[in-house]
Amino acid sequence: MNETIRTQLNHRSIRKFKQDAVPQEIITQLVDVARHTATSNFMQSYSIIGISDKEKMTELSLICQQPYVAQASHIFLFVADQYRNEKIAESQGQETSVLQNMDRFMIAMTDASLAIQNVNVAAESLGLGTVFLGSVLNDAPAVVDLFNLPKMTFPILGLAVGYPDQEPQLKPRLPQSLMYFDNSYPDVLPLTEELAKYDNDVTQYYDLRDANTRVDSFTKQITDGMNRKMPKRLNVLKDIQAQGLIQE
Amino acid sequence: MNETIRTQLNHRSIRKFKQDAVPQEIITQLVDVARHTATSNFMQSYSIIGISDKEKMTELSLICQQPYVAQASHIFLFVADQYRNEKIAESQGQETSVLQNMDRFMIAMTDASLAIQNVNVAAESLGLGTVFLGSVLNDAPAVVDLFNLPKMTFPILGLAVGYPDQEPQLKPRLPQSLMYFDNSYPDVLPLTEELAKYDNDVTQYYDLRDANTRVDSFTKQITDGMNRKMPKRLNVLKDIQAQGLIQE
Repeated sequence: MNETIRTQLNHRSIRKFKQDAVPQEIITQLVDVARHTATSNFMQSYSIIGISDKEKMTELSLICQQPYVAQASHIFLFVADQYRNEKIAESQGQETSVLQNMDRFMIAMTDASLAIQNVNVAAESLGLGTVFLGSVLNDAPAVVDLFNLPKMTFPILGLAVGYPDQEPQLKPRLPQSLMYFDNSYPDVLPLTEELAKYDNDVTQYYDLRDANTRVDSFTKQITDGMNRKMPKRLNVLKDIQAQGLIQE
Repeated sequence: MNETIRTQLNHRSIRKFKQDAVPQEIITQLVDVARHTATSNFMQSYSIIGISDKEKMTELSLICQQPYVAQASHIFLFVADQYRNEKIAESQGQETSVLQNMDRFMIAMTDASLAIQNVNVAAESLGLGTVFLGSVLNDAPAVVDLFNLPKMTFPILGLAVGYPDQEPQLKPRLPQSLMYFDNSYPDVLPLTEELAKYDNDVTQYYDLRDANTRVDSFTKQITDGMNRKMPKRLNVLKDIQAQGLIQE
């Protein structure tokens, strides 16, 4: 167990930040960490919008439907980006239609996702609090407009950072027996025996977001989540296609 | 600058491993790091296949077309997994068709991608060498068969780990001016001035994979990459749909 892993095992989302601003030199260092993340075929198919403008933060918090988004010191918006590479290749007279394939979209998505997690680890190692914003996809076209995202790009995830002003409990995760499998996916998941114990663990966890009340079991959260159908999110494939990606 | 960030800025892919095996307790610790990664809506929509079986490693190396895959001590295959949550919800009599939407596929993909990068940081912090295997998508149906992946799951990325037996140069990355933008994506990328300098940096880098010869400029790599059209990879959307995901 070293300090890096100690920080990683201690991860929790922070949704209340102090007023203190994160200094620019730390922002620059975090972007450097992103830059040094592994990238598929060295293509670096992602970009980052650094959001410090308070009006844009407020607009984004309305899209995310999360008031704490507006209270962060800084937000990193990670964007799948085939636009830059398209422009580079076009400058050489190269045809670029392969960029419109799902394969290249997945590559850009994983590039963006690996980089944002790398930034998250670095931020937490510096004592910053963070929360991922999958909610930027609540209304992707609005995010595209707000940040002037060109065709061949698409928002993937946001990361809000700031100095933490809360200490949430560590959230219990699925046991290894339900998510790590030796050499083959099992024919039958050990749901009966292992899940009941995990459900019980989860109900012991107090969720700061909800006035310190206990939360539902994992089984109930997953089951109820099937009815969480946000119309704009369910349209995301068409939104991606409207950006010129996944043309098939 | 702390030790965590020093390790992150020092990231390089390792493609030659010593024979020494990574001890089981380290594997278990790395999976624990995965478990503690942020996850969208607490759904934990991913699973990991831990590959130690040498025959399966060899078969995977043929799919990846990378002989060093067979030489790793251990491979983690990260899988987007809506199967487990589908079974949990079905056990409660819940209808689950929302899982077939692109939104839920993206959630599962980012869950898997965040977790694999977290594992990568932990592994490197312990002195292990790693290489990401985007090449598991060279033939996704073959990977599905090899690891018995059920419907509603799909392979995303592999991570091969072992004790490093090479010391590659640090690869120069796009400068911040070309991938980090304040509050808005720029109307015009500063490609002319910044890219020429970066192209020059890249050609100074010696690639161990190719007998220590210099590599092409970034512009040339990106341009030539447009012709890298692997037929099976270009079919990945249909492969995902064949697994029951993205039914639209």
